[in-house]
Amino acid sequence: MIAEIISTGDEVLTGTVVDANAAWIAARLYETGIVVGRHVCVGDDMDRLTDVFFEAGQRADIAIVTGGLGPTLDDITASAAARAAGVELEENQEALAYMTVFFKRFGRPLSDSDAKQSLLPRGASPLLNSVGTAPGFTLKIGRCRFFFLPGVPFEMRQMMDEHVIVSLEADAARNGTGSFYREKRLSLFGLPEAHVNERLADLTGVIDNVKLGMLAEFPVIHVKLAASGHNEKALEAAVSAAADRVRQRVGEYVFSETGQTMEEVVGDLLIRRSATLALAESCTGGMIASRITNVAGSSRYFLCSAVTYSNEAKMRLLGVPADTLDAFGAVSEQTARQMAEGARRLAGSDYAVSVSGIAGPGGGTPEKPVGTVCIGLCGPAQSFARQYQFPFENRMANKRIFAETALNLLRKTLNA
Amino acid sequence: MIAEIISTGDEVLTGTVVDANAAWIAARLYETGIVVGRHVCVGDDMDRLTDVFFEAGQRADIAIVTGGLGPTLDDITASAAARAAGVELEENQEALAYMTVFFKRFGRPLSDSDAKQSLLPRGASPLLNSVGTAPGFTLKIGRCRFFFLPGVPFEMRQMMDEHVIVSLEADAARNGTGSFYREKRLSLFGLPEAHVNERLADLTGVIDNVKLGMLAEFPVIHVKLAASGHNEKALEAAVSAAADRVRQRVGEYVFSETGQTMEEVVGDLLIRRSATLALAESCTGGMIASRITNVAGSSRYFLCSAVTYSNEAKMRLLGVPADTLDAFGAVSEQTARQMAEGARRLAGSDYAVSVSGIAGPGGGTPEKPVGTVCIGLCGPAQSFARQYQFPFENRMANKRIFAETALNLLRKTLNA
Repeated sequence: MIAEIISTGDEVLTGTVVDANAAWIAARLYETGIVVGRHVCVGDDMDRLTDVFFEAGQRADIAIVTGGLGPTLDDITASAAARAAGVELEENQEALAYMTVFFKRFGRPLSDSDAKQSLLPRGASPLLNSVGTAPGFTLKIGRCRFFFLPGVPFEMRQMMDEHVIVSLEADAARNGTGSFYREKRLSLFGLPEAHVNERLADLTGVIDNVKLGMLAEFPVIHVKLAASGHNEKALEAAVSAAADRVRQRVGEYVFSETGQTMEEVVGDLLIRRSATLALAESCTGGMIASRITNVAGSSRYFLCSAVTYSNEAKMRLLGVPADTLDAFGAVSEQTARQMAEGARRLAGSDYAVSVSGIAGPGGGTPEKPVGTVCIGLCGPAQSFARQYQFPFENRMANKRIFAETALNLLRKTLNA
Repeated sequence: MIAEIISTGDEVLTGTVVDANAAWIAARLYETGIVVGRHVCVGDDMDRLTDVFFEAGQRADIAIVTGGLGPTLDDITASAAARAAGVELEENQEALAYMTVFFKRFGRPLSDSDAKQSLLPRGASPLLNSVGTAPGFTLKIGRCRFFFLPGVPFEMRQMMDEHVIVSLEADAARNGTGSFYREKRLSLFGLPEAHVNERLADLTGVIDNVKLGMLAEFPVIHVKLAASGHNEKALEAAVSAAADRVRQRVGEYVFSETGQTMEEVVGDLLIRRSATLALAESCTGGMIASRITNVAGSSRYFLCSAVTYSNEAKMRLLGVPADTLDAFGAVSEQTARQMAEGARRLAGSDYAVSVSGIAGPGGGTPEKPVGTVCIGLCGPAQSFARQYQFPFENRMANKRIFAETALNLLRKTLNA
């Protein structure tokens, strides 16, 4: 079974938007045991769209198409599909009924341009879009079954899971061709990508039947172990054995094996210890607090962050003595420690973490170049600070790695 | 002149990596006045690669191929190109000379697998890679001129500019077909995408020679006006006239015409007024402070943010009276106003902005459902708060739109 992925739309073709949909669909199909032959991206051009649909209809077993289903003039996917299949467009009563219900629910009248979205190629079956107005549809063109989905990532993903994957899995079950998929993801922090690469290089492609992939999401690196096949137990054993080998090489840097982010791991540790947290952020400027509060339910443990960007604020809010700032500077272990202690006192929390550093591009000195950061940690049993040096000149890269380092230090302390 | 972009490699095909190269190349070609017909992505599979090269050779005038030029067994681009062109691979002396120099410069010996990279299709001309080991090459297949570049983004970009763009511009100059490119981007906030669409729908494709594109970067929408052609002055006039027509329809929502983010616009306004800023954030959890401090030089105006997630912290840090919290709740105009006043007092700033709301997924009530937010603003001349209601259930969507709304309110106040 060979699949093709077809992305449509001028904004993708001209590079205004990166085609992240195609990668997501490819990964989802791969997990379902389906081989992707190629991706094609084409603009809102009737002749080219028709050609691409027609060609895929000769070559592939299934095709997933995204984009061009909306109410505007640019949205010509249904027309091109009809041309490629050699059929007419007609009003699809089922699609119209779906849309009427959806618009009613949102209290909006169904305009003529909205209603255009119920014009589908003859022989197409609509696919309900439970989160947007444009219904998708499925249609046979040549020997290939096409699934037409919206280009909006959120809607596309929902419909991919609700319609495409469900239907492909049902086919596989019927034909007894179902295959299993197992995946494990180890998330690492603290080892640069090139070093992870080096340590794992000889494992690539040689752990029996397990595909080893690396995905950098700076500053975190995910090592992905994936296998598909017909024997569920053998798959699990193979992925588990592969994970053991990866852990032997880089285990000390693994902070999550469940896909949890660093802030989720830290949140769970705080809940398990019934402990509360306060922050004092200088150069990260609220990024750590924002990440902590991205986790639903973080109000159980997170009390506050004092984002003290100016020295004045470090003194006023956190009670850092002017003497400390004068003698050691804002970016020093002494100041970081005082900031953490001040935040803990201010909030009445069990733990407090502080960050003071030089994110750049300006502000560096020969002694404390851009990339220098001091992190303080104050808990019921200890109060300390550490200085780190990172090689980045880029402000955002530094903010990210400073934030991750602070959260990782807290994780290790809570785990100790 | 029609171009095609071909990305190769299993990691892109299976969705392990998003194909950002294709978007970058497309944008670069578009700026050079070249129309992209389609993108194709295919894995490390000899037959499929050969097919894709052969097909593009029939269809396009130029093709940009990325990936598969390295020394490993997976790297089969040159072989597939030779098959598609119907020629043999042979050792290319020029490529070998390049590589010898490059390896010498980095003090590494040239191994057999490295040397493999100098095997190119007969008739190919190598393209010097000044930042990596794998040389690229150019070759005619069918009627189409192919440029083969590495998949590493940094190397690809360098070679795209050094070789491909330079060569295309030289061709254009020779043939008198050189073209200019002009682009203008209006960034909007406060009008949902569907409404922007509706207001601009009849302009799409009809503003003479100017391409109108929309790019949603939630909650901001960018309207992009782009034109290419031979008369530089006419282009500028056309884009400027198109911008006037867009402003007539949605001008009140435009916050930037220079690509600046909302936090950059606000930063410039604060600098212009020599004013300082403090924040008090509850549900946005530090996101606003983090965005403000993403701007280099923000220490000139940003003093601090009190991220007061708990009610206790709102009282302790900002001096919000317990009575106010009891009587009106944390999410109320009364509390938001007290938070802003408290932040301004605490920091000694000219302006302070506060946010208190319900980002979800939990915490909503019938009176104050998820998506409710109160924003306070306190300045030298005024102190007020406003309540807003957004239709989103999603925590991240709410954090983002709350933050943008707060920054926008500050922008309007500073502009008044």
